[in-house]
Amino acid sequence: MSRNNLIYEGKAKILYEGTEPGTIIQYFKDDTTAGNGEKKAVISGKGVLNNRISEFIYRKLEDIGIHTHFIKSLNMREQLVRAVEIIPVEVVIRNVTAGSLSKRFGVEEGMLLPVPLVEYYLKSDELNDPMITEEHIKTFDWAIEEELEEMRRVAIRVNDFLAGLFLGAKIKLIDMKLEFGRLYDEEGNIYIVLADEISPDSCRLWDSETGEKLDKDRFRRDMGGLEEAYQEVAKRLGILNSNENVLNDRKGENSETNKEIKKKPNTKSGSKPKK
Amino acid sequence: MSRNNLIYEGKAKILYEGTEPGTIIQYFKDDTTAGNGEKKAVISGKGVLNNRISEFIYRKLEDIGIHTHFIKSLNMREQLVRAVEIIPVEVVIRNVTAGSLSKRFGVEEGMLLPVPLVEYYLKSDELNDPMITEEHIKTFDWAIEEELEEMRRVAIRVNDFLAGLFLGAKIKLIDMKLEFGRLYDEEGNIYIVLADEISPDSCRLWDSETGEKLDKDRFRRDMGGLEEAYQEVAKRLGILNSNENVLNDRKGENSETNKEIKKKPNTKSGSKPKK
Repeated sequence: MSRNNLIYEGKAKILYEGTEPGTIIQYFKDDTTAGNGEKKAVISGKGVLNNRISEFIYRKLEDIGIHTHFIKSLNMREQLVRAVEIIPVEVVIRNVTAGSLSKRFGVEEGMLLPVPLVEYYLKSDELNDPMITEEHIKTFDWAIEEELEEMRRVAIRVNDFLAGLFLGAKIKLIDMKLEFGRLYDEEGNIYIVLADEISPDSCRLWDSETGEKLDKDRFRRDMGGLEEAYQEVAKRLGILNSNENVLNDRKGENSETNKEIKKKPNTKSGSKPKK
Repeated sequence: MSRNNLIYEGKAKILYEGTEPGTIIQYFKDDTTAGNGEKKAVISGKGVLNNRISEFIYRKLEDIGIHTHFIKSLNMREQLVRAVEIIPVEVVIRNVTAGSLSKRFGVEEGMLLPVPLVEYYLKSDELNDPMITEEHIKTFDWAIEEELEEMRRVAIRVNDFLAGLFLGAKIKLIDMKLEFGRLYDEEGNIYIVLADEISPDSCRLWDSETGEKLDKDRFRRDMGGLEEAYQEVAKRLGILNSNENVLNDRKGENSETNKEIKKKPNTKSGSKPKK
């Protein structure tokens, strides 16, 4: 675990002050929650997998010109990211009906949407992340119109790119949640960058042939096999060698000791993606 | 009660086949519900008042060029309206924070919004009228883009006009719900017209000086005095003479006999608005 000052502890991640000004260390926990924290578990290895999957995805997104907060991987569970002012609007983009959309509108799960559907949710545990509209965002000044347009534009690009990337790994990207932050430069200009993480915690991913769930719904719906599913995603994306096993590597460690491994930032860690 | 064939019975109104093709009789019940029908009561005189208030408002809206389904008043509880295909999208327009908006976003009630806020809800008792976005409406084909634009344009005009009209009666229009329908002409052209009703059942109305509630929130919040409040609205709008009293007029009648009064359509009924 980082020795730096803690900034914020969330449900699945901890943020520490970074080693340089304007940076933050993003630590991925094994803690897994659903229903706004009502359901909790520690699923060992999850943090390691999400760190690596998210790093892999953010690097690929940077390659196509999408600006993210990601700087570099530090170790198995930590990334150095830019300190941004998080915009309190979660952007959900959906390709196929599932989850809350199906429930809210009485629509069967698994229906392909005619075009990707963008939704906004207020990032507020207290209010249970209520769905909001562009109009609410502008009225309550959660983001200004230009920011919202940029977030939407980026969300559509990210979705198109990742739908393709996952499909190449025989995975259907059903939907995902994105978070954005404001990055200030020395002249006070503001840039909107992709923040947070993209992982099976924040996406719905179904095997493109069998429809098997490879995401956090396994936990939400008590299906078990969450860590194996995340590992499968990592393997299919080519992040883990097919004979590598994050879960087995850690056998005999408990989650407390997990948190202690790799104390020192290590930019050449095993989490470097295989291209 | 009309002898015509029943088309549909809703929570607060009944629709019967009209006397001419393409028309419908809209009957205003005394039934009052809240929480999607979880809470129910019969508040005698309410139907009569809503019929008259809604007629008055729809006539005034027609005068400023807003097309509505309203044709004429038939009697104390019935209006003849055009048969339209109801669009399953309720348009809510808000000037001041209140109700579900305040609850959902943790915002105090009574805050003036910087500009009127338009929200959409899916008209579905089964799904509890969930909030929806323009994007959902297009994706699920609940209305097409041009219809939605027209509904929004009309909602803003109606709101501006009624905010003024009510203010002249020392009433603040806090928010209101509008419904729209598709009207088909002989050539198959589609026109979007304002349907349903506008009354203290569908608006939040506060006394502009004391803030006293003159709308259905009195029932939702168990404050009592609903019928007196509706009557006060009617009086202030000049629909009832200051010495006229719908409630007292009906003393000794029970709600069953209420339904029997004025069997025959009467376009010159007492519900004609006083200009």
